[in-house]
Amino acid sequence: MTTNRQFRLKARPVGRIKPTDFELVEGPVPTAGPGQAVARLLYLSLDPTNRIWMTDMEQYMPPVQLGEVMRGGGIARVVESQLPEYPVGTLVTGLTGWQDYVVLDAGSSAMLQALPPGLPVPPQAFMGALGVTGLTAYFGLLELGQPQPGETVVVSAAAGATGSVVGQIARIKGCRVVGIAGGAEKCRWLTADLGFDAAVDYKAPGWQAALRAACPKGIDVNFENVGGEIMDEVMSGMNLGGRVVLCGMISGYNDSAPMRGRFDLILMKRLRVQGFIVIDFMPRFAEGVMQLAQWYLSGELKHRDTVVDGLENAPTAINMLFDGSNVGKLLVKVSDEQGTSDEQGT
Amino acid sequence: MTTNRQFRLKARPVGRIKPTDFELVEGPVPTAGPGQAVARLLYLSLDPTNRIWMTDMEQYMPPVQLGEVMRGGGIARVVESQLPEYPVGTLVTGLTGWQDYVVLDAGSSAMLQALPPGLPVPPQAFMGALGVTGLTAYFGLLELGQPQPGETVVVSAAAGATGSVVGQIARIKGCRVVGIAGGAEKCRWLTADLGFDAAVDYKAPGWQAALRAACPKGIDVNFENVGGEIMDEVMSGMNLGGRVVLCGMISGYNDSAPMRGRFDLILMKRLRVQGFIVIDFMPRFAEGVMQLAQWYLSGELKHRDTVVDGLENAPTAINMLFDGSNVGKLLVKVSDEQGTSDEQGT
Repeated sequence: MTTNRQFRLKARPVGRIKPTDFELVEGPVPTAGPGQAVARLLYLSLDPTNRIWMTDMEQYMPPVQLGEVMRGGGIARVVESQLPEYPVGTLVTGLTGWQDYVVLDAGSSAMLQALPPGLPVPPQAFMGALGVTGLTAYFGLLELGQPQPGETVVVSAAAGATGSVVGQIARIKGCRVVGIAGGAEKCRWLTADLGFDAAVDYKAPGWQAALRAACPKGIDVNFENVGGEIMDEVMSGMNLGGRVVLCGMISGYNDSAPMRGRFDLILMKRLRVQGFIVIDFMPRFAEGVMQLAQWYLSGELKHRDTVVDGLENAPTAINMLFDGSNVGKLLVKVSDEQGTSDEQGT
Repeated sequence: MTTNRQFRLKARPVGRIKPTDFELVEGPVPTAGPGQAVARLLYLSLDPTNRIWMTDMEQYMPPVQLGEVMRGGGIARVVESQLPEYPVGTLVTGLTGWQDYVVLDAGSSAMLQALPPGLPVPPQAFMGALGVTGLTAYFGLLELGQPQPGETVVVSAAAGATGSVVGQIARIKGCRVVGIAGGAEKCRWLTADLGFDAAVDYKAPGWQAALRAACPKGIDVNFENVGGEIMDEVMSGMNLGGRVVLCGMISGYNDSAPMRGRFDLILMKRLRVQGFIVIDFMPRFAEGVMQLAQWYLSGELKHRDTVVDGLENAPTAINMLFDGSNVGKLLVKVSDEQGTSDEQGT
């Protein structure tokens, strides 16, 4: 490949994301200056929070500016380097952006992290169970949710990248784990493969009663990814002193109205609701990755992803998150490992 | 007085409380059986939470049943006793109900606490700054709000019984204190007499801008008593990692719709919102009263009340809380100390 494709944000999406909200710009493959390296993307991560970055609402990072390359996480392999710590072939991860090639610049914000070498782990797991979404599950559940053995933990978007790890960690910690997901197949995966105690299909009639039946002792911890009606229903079933880890509210991200929730229940049930962004725990990421990797290598924690082929499909593929048509981590395969290696010219 | 008047709940109020929601029943003054004492009410406390008790919504105590004497806090003096620890003349406080006389029953839920004797404090202060509302302020602000010196604390319904103590404790703890109250006179009281750094009159045009101007470094702690638009506005001005002590939402208590709030702000600002009922801290009430009494006796903490004369006026007087026409603790004077003493026949 001799060109670098970049998706630049052209318009702030209204409602569902449209391909016309981006401009696809082709340019030369960047070269590495002193103190720089160039890496070619293997996988681009698509995450609900990307939708927030496309807006100019008040948020936890600056919004992506119009004309700027769309921000996104990814995993890439170094193909040219003037950075001794990042030799050609190094796998790196971080905010790569929606493009074929990314420039690493030592000491600047355009810096990526090298992946731990030598682990028998497929690189895409570092985008999921061992990556930012896994860390989100780990710190959010354990630090904010503080689940105790025997307590009931409910997680929404349970078949998603974060939710599926939340449920597995809660199971490892001795909790009763109930997942909420859309569709029988996802629910079957949660209970049969991931060891959830129960899974509730919110697309099935009577799911509210099914949720209550799945939580005979009430709900102690809600790890919230969805918001809206699902969140209302879970909060209605919470016990006194319950904890809500407010990680996301994907059901509202395509709306412009502020997302609201049941403050009356917070008051009456003395709940603790805490908003949460994993970057607050950045100083402890190494601890988190180490624990997640141990669970993964012992078989207690499973990673699954849904891979869409081709960077050109990113603007349409991201809507799968809002449709719920992905299972596990949603990734775009940007280039082929083998291909990348060939083109290094080594 | 030879009769005992009792207000019994006749209908669950819809909207504003009406006198016809109660039945006034007259009966004989109760007598004390073995292990019992009878106390005559001096003051009845009217509190926003009484409105919740009148409904059958899910709440932190059982709702008052139709036909039952309306539940309420009060202060009373023992007039007849077969309880050695509660001799005639003892001042007691607790859930006296809306009536002239209350029966104390050792070891049952109909038990009241004796007030510490010998303090140079007017009894009604034990309904306010040194009572349940003072304790609500003390534990809610310090345990849940965790204000640090130099942080900005905003309290709504700041001229109310709880809010006025919240602000004074925050001032004692070295915070910048901003109160929100209705009317220039209340605001003047907060700044001139109670030492608030600023007070914002939410009935004045442009109060939102005034609030922002009063909090140049943003808001770290919101002690929330009101809910609705005022809560939304305060939450919009909160800093990352801010704490919301959700003590009450009086603006919504007359509505039947669930009270909602800005979950998007909880998420984006990583706020911690915690529902709170002071009874969770009951084991520590003695500690709280002791500290509040020290501040009161040293002049650092002021108590103020609005007293309505006559038990018969309780059903109309309680609406002053929702109109905002009380300043400080709202009390109903049920009987006269001197009169009570005369009738003891001692």
